[in-house]
Amino acid sequence: MPRVAASAAVERVMSNREWVYGLHAVQALLKRHPDRVLELKLAERRDDPRMRAIEALAREHGTPVQRVDVPALHAAVGDVAHQGVAAAVVSLAPWSEGDLLSALGATASPLVLALDGVQDPHNLGACLRTADACGALAVVVPKDRAATLSPVVRKVAAGAAESVPLVTVTNLVRTLKLLKEAQLWVTGADADATATAAEVDFTGGTVLVMGAEGAGLRHLTRQTCDHLVRLPQLGSVESLNVSVAAGMLLYEVVRQRSKK
Amino acid sequence: MPRVAASAAVERVMSNREWVYGLHAVQALLKRHPDRVLELKLAERRDDPRMRAIEALAREHGTPVQRVDVPALHAAVGDVAHQGVAAAVVSLAPWSEGDLLSALGATASPLVLALDGVQDPHNLGACLRTADACGALAVVVPKDRAATLSPVVRKVAAGAAESVPLVTVTNLVRTLKLLKEAQLWVTGADADATATAAEVDFTGGTVLVMGAEGAGLRHLTRQTCDHLVRLPQLGSVESLNVSVAAGMLLYEVVRQRSKK
Repeated sequence: MPRVAASAAVERVMSNREWVYGLHAVQALLKRHPDRVLELKLAERRDDPRMRAIEALAREHGTPVQRVDVPALHAAVGDVAHQGVAAAVVSLAPWSEGDLLSALGATASPLVLALDGVQDPHNLGACLRTADACGALAVVVPKDRAATLSPVVRKVAAGAAESVPLVTVTNLVRTLKLLKEAQLWVTGADADATATAAEVDFTGGTVLVMGAEGAGLRHLTRQTCDHLVRLPQLGSVESLNVSVAAGMLLYEVVRQRSKK
Repeated sequence: MPRVAASAAVERVMSNREWVYGLHAVQALLKRHPDRVLELKLAERRDDPRMRAIEALAREHGTPVQRVDVPALHAAVGDVAHQGVAAAVVSLAPWSEGDLLSALGATASPLVLALDGVQDPHNLGACLRTADACGALAVVVPKDRAATLSPVVRKVAAGAAESVPLVTVTNLVRTLKLLKEAQLWVTGADADATATAAEVDFTGGTVLVMGAEGAGLRHLTRQTCDHLVRLPQLGSVESLNVSVAAGMLLYEVVRQRSKK
């Protein structure tokens, strides 16, 4: 469970509410962060084992459950694949650098994704979503000249913005150095690197750093990395989409760790 | 060189022209398909070794080269990271199922990506781009209820739509069976699978099949697969974005093949 320290940090900054939908997403939130689930809306015509399991979990935690018709569900969450279930949750506020460093101690082999100047909110949302699927502790972005949490990011993240904390930092290089001091190894994606991702050991604490598309890692960021790795580049387009590239590296971490 | 058979098939259907930009993309096109490059526009103020290499390649093939100012370059390709170089190319027309089957013979260990009902043009574009980076021969989509080539797809594909042929087929299951008869192994991504991608051997001819987000593979498609594999699902969101999931599987193929 890589995110044990999350709820303590979150409770300090309870503010807005967001809708999370889908059987898996809602069930996972009820299991991990029942205190953050404010209410459930279930489609009145659905009654199958997974739905009943979610309803039982909610009753166990005293979460209000409402049976509604499908139009009411769409009104709450929009025209999405809600699978008949939606949860109103306390939205996850960004972490500070201090929150991140505190959370490291409670996590075996923490995995952190850092984005060095990713400006497109779709890419940030997609990175949050993949970071969640791969068990990352948090996603780190610099405060300036980078995308940060917005409705577009939350939507593309498909619930992951309520699950993986975003850490906004003033100086990304400084944060990377602090993570190195905390015994994490920092690996950057670089088109000109000679090593492949499979040649780096990701079974220990790991920070993955992705640069902006086209520009890549900034000079100081590159210098701060312990390892630089290249990703598949057999074709004729300039570079991979940054969220796909992040997905490949995160996949490699999960692959190595599950083998171990 | 996985795409040796491409130009023969393309020459049959020369039609529109499209702009491809960026140093790597334009250089790769000039090396692989010089016959498809109609003209080059280079930024007049740029003069470095890579630019000179591109200019030399163009002169070698008798491709017209024009030095233009940056506004003229932007006017041609839009507000993108063109790196001072753009090429007008004969756009790559979709392949038929027959084109795909003929191309298999000329390719050692062909890699094909099939998308079973992916309707979002952004996802199709992103899949084309990643398929290109990972050396895929082609991307296969069903004719009905699926995204096909459009300006949005071409833009998101960032040049890959001019490099990786899209194969539009009437019956995806039938095409998968023909690919199996041609000695390719068909692997589908499935959230409920017990095997991981790393447990399947991708060093031989490979077809990867991705289902629509949420719905997954259709029943008959799933039945046609030789292997089903799951992707990282450690978090609380419902599923990975389909283009990120495709990127993970394509990465795994490249990883296994480069190890071999």
